[in-house]
Amino acid sequence: MSKLITPRNENYSEWYLDIIKHAGLAEHSAVKGCMVIKPYGYAIWEKMRDDLDRRFKETGHENAYFPLFIPKSLFEAEEKNAEGFAKECAVVTHYRLKNHPTEKGKLIADPDSRLEEELIVRPTSEAVIWNTYKNWIQSYRDLPLLINQWANVVRWEMRTRLFLRTAEFLWQEGHTAHATAEEAMQETRQMLEVYADFAEKVLAIPVIKGIKTENERFAGADETFCIEAMMQDGKALQAGTSHFLGQNFAKAFDVKFLNKENKLEYVWGTSWGVSTRLMGALIMSHSDDSGLVLPPKVAPIQVVIVPIYKGEESFARLNEACDNIAKSLKKQGISVKLDFRETQTPGFKFAEWEVKGVPIRLALGLRDLENQTIEVARRDTKNKTTIPLQDVEGYVSNLLEQIQQSIYQKALEFREKNTFEVNTYEEFKEVMEKGGFALAHWDGTTETELKIKEETKATIRCIPLNARKETGKCIYTGKPSSQRVIFAQAY
Amino acid sequence: MSKLITPRNENYSEWYLDIIKHAGLAEHSAVKGCMVIKPYGYAIWEKMRDDLDRRFKETGHENAYFPLFIPKSLFEAEEKNAEGFAKECAVVTHYRLKNHPTEKGKLIADPDSRLEEELIVRPTSEAVIWNTYKNWIQSYRDLPLLINQWANVVRWEMRTRLFLRTAEFLWQEGHTAHATAEEAMQETRQMLEVYADFAEKVLAIPVIKGIKTENERFAGADETFCIEAMMQDGKALQAGTSHFLGQNFAKAFDVKFLNKENKLEYVWGTSWGVSTRLMGALIMSHSDDSGLVLPPKVAPIQVVIVPIYKGEESFARLNEACDNIAKSLKKQGISVKLDFRETQTPGFKFAEWEVKGVPIRLALGLRDLENQTIEVARRDTKNKTTIPLQDVEGYVSNLLEQIQQSIYQKALEFREKNTFEVNTYEEFKEVMEKGGFALAHWDGTTETELKIKEETKATIRCIPLNARKETGKCIYTGKPSSQRVIFAQAY
Ligand SMILES: [Zn+2]
Ligand SMILES: [Zn+2]
Repeated sequence: MSKLITPRNENYSEWYLDIIKHAGLAEHSAVKGCMVIKPYGYAIWEKMRDDLDRRFKETGHENAYFPLFIPKSLFEAEEKNAEGFAKECAVVTHYRLKNHPTEKGKLIADPDSRLEEELIVRPTSEAVIWNTYKNWIQSYRDLPLLINQWANVVRWEMRTRLFLRTAEFLWQEGHTAHATAEEAMQETRQMLEVYADFAEKVLAIPVIKGIKTENERFAGADETFCIEAMMQDGKALQAGTSHFLGQNFAKAFDVKFLNKENKLEYVWGTSWGVSTRLMGALIMSHSDDSGLVLPPKVAPIQVVIVPIYKGEESFARLNEACDNIAKSLKKQGISVKLDFRETQTPGFKFAEWEVKGVPIRLALGLRDLENQTIEVARRDTKNKTTIPLQDVEGYVSNLLEQIQQSIYQKALEFREKNTFEVNTYEEFKEVMEKGGFALAHWDGTTETELKIKEETKATIRCIPLNARKETGKCIYTGKPSSQRVIFAQAY
Repeated sequence: MSKLITPRNENYSEWYLDIIKHAGLAEHSAVKGCMVIKPYGYAIWEKMRDDLDRRFKETGHENAYFPLFIPKSLFEAEEKNAEGFAKECAVVTHYRLKNHPTEKGKLIADPDSRLEEELIVRPTSEAVIWNTYKNWIQSYRDLPLLINQWANVVRWEMRTRLFLRTAEFLWQEGHTAHATAEEAMQETRQMLEVYADFAEKVLAIPVIKGIKTENERFAGADETFCIEAMMQDGKALQAGTSHFLGQNFAKAFDVKFLNKENKLEYVWGTSWGVSTRLMGALIMSHSDDSGLVLPPKVAPIQVVIVPIYKGEESFARLNEACDNIAKSLKKQGISVKLDFRETQTPGFKFAEWEVKGVPIRLALGLRDLENQTIEVARRDTKNKTTIPLQDVEGYVSNLLEQIQQSIYQKALEFREKNTFEVNTYEEFKEVMEKGGFALAHWDGTTETELKIKEETKATIRCIPLNARKETGKCIYTGKPSSQRVIFAQAY
């Protein structure tokens, strides 16, 4: 099974797609650019979603649901925002099908059902949400308004890649409204911290928190914050964004409130989101040439138990012993799969759970049972060890925690090894050729940024927060700079 | 606040919409026919969803996600199914917008982006799912395939009503594939039981399980099972359906499997679903002229605590006491809201939580604190009582259980009081005029069914399962009948 996975160093892109295929995470659908998220992939997404949802609620947000369709006129209201997405939208023009006049069994869009105003399938929901907030916000007492939505969105893409770039994807989008700029900025930064903590503690992906340059900013935002992660080919992946919208959407949709001094003011907004793209980040951060490697906190199955049968007579005893282990692990809140399938060999099962990235595999044979031992195999390091059966509960529980940290540590070390301070454009280009992050001085202009992009495909991933202030000279123009920024090629 | 709610007997339809409005459940959006589900409404839906999701997983189902768009050709494949929905679909014809050639700031669908094949926004996902199952199913080892999806779907509607009939709605759709007809039928009936149990135990809505007549059957199914509930105007609401699809979709999409005898056979299918329509059923089953009444099991807030301040000095003592009560209730898994708002009077708060249907309201004043008592008010009966403060934990916990059962019992009694065995068409018409369910004999023909519908607007809601067999004569034609069926006007 795992032999069917192309090694990373042979063809990184094939490796990624092979893992998705053989781990059963997703596949292309009959609709160009739209994916089917398969049950195992969806179960991982559910783990992510539930953890994030808990964090959103703990920080005072409520979920709601807004329409899939946005009338074209609403879409035109916030100019920059419409420009930013206008090129890639699914447009609904008719609301009825009818039988083809001559070809039996064929359908056509009924010309009589043409919509007066076209509907856009939401690429993001600022327009429809701010149009609604207009009616929800009258006074400072209605603020802050802290709302999140879990939804599907559509951005037409010509070249798609499963999870990373698909026409339809799943995401959450937070949309908040505040009485003051300070409060909105605090919310923007708070959600960035929520994302960063989630990425590091749950997905075991180290991220760099930063601010986007003007050129990479969300259309309609005054400031875009992001978390950036390094994939195993040295490329960057934007794992989440949090936007300070200023009063842009409030002005576009005329959302004002009476402040405590009884004066009308425009409200301040934020929006923030992460998507099924995180699935791509998860796969590319930790997996190896044998398949998926999952941090225990998002593994739908944390422990698989495989009994090694020898002859019919051993069935009952092994099954019972395995069942007891499973029960004791489940009591600790560990998700356990008992693989009793009689149609498959232990070798087949080992390979399957390996490619699916189950963090711990327990194997129990008759001899183990006699010796009161059990074999424990770690997916991440592939280490195997035999422990006393009576210790299994505590051992597994500790090991899960250890694996979670170890996977994070490995990804962090990889990033550090592939991050370089560069001081000349020559050095810079070398880094971009071999892959990795370049910490470089930049003169702060969009012009320079675009030239560097044109010549090297590298973009400024972010201006890192909390970075040491250091003056220097732009690697491209030699003009003065006050801080290094992160350049990389990106997904 | 509650005075703004139109009484049921004055205008039932206004009453329904007033509750949705004043309880803050949903509202119309800028897109005709599409609703915004507001945070409080969405929180109720989340409670429903989580409970159902747990039931689906306990019965062996996994979640997955399939595309929003269905190519027109897939839609044509299952003839009956396409016919059933073809009249009411959103059709995507373009994938790009561009600036209007002359009007600045306006957008048009880019004519160059016309799709070769139109995409239909899913009204239901059988087509795209069975087209996928074709690749997932080869052998009997791949069966049963037990998958559920939580998704948004679109069915264009001209006359919409919040939650009951909207162009876009949220739902779950189960789609399973089986090796034998018997197993598929067992699954169909199992999911009907899951729905019925959920409706009665969680939503406190008594339901009648039955089979749809051929005329009311899901397009593409061999048999449709349903649960039907009675609303307070005596009309029926279909609260969930479970379809035995036979081999219809398997044949339409060529889904075959190698059986144990190594022979190719078409697989057998089921599909089943419930939607945000359940929100409408919930509202109309239990609410009264003062607003929403919620069964505790789906109440986002089960208990609200309102301190009754008298002067500044009492703030701290009351807040502390209320806080302690909240903590002890939360420890029992009860969801509690502490309403400390200083901007509102207790009277305003009482009215607000009443209209929002919070099952239990606790009010604590200074005198209560001195006497070590607390006032407990039930939303469903509006009974108030004062109990010793030290008993509050056990009392509230028992009361929540009691309210859950009492709400169900009340709805059951209402249904029984408004269900009539009728033996003549005259009697039948009288029932339809005043509202309610009529148990009547029917000759089994679509012709008679349609004539009765034309004359009285009543449809056969279902042929009830487990009903007593009783021969009789059709109320319309006098022809023989073997069982009474349920007629009603319906949502
Ligand atoms: Zn394989
Ligand atoms: Zn009101």
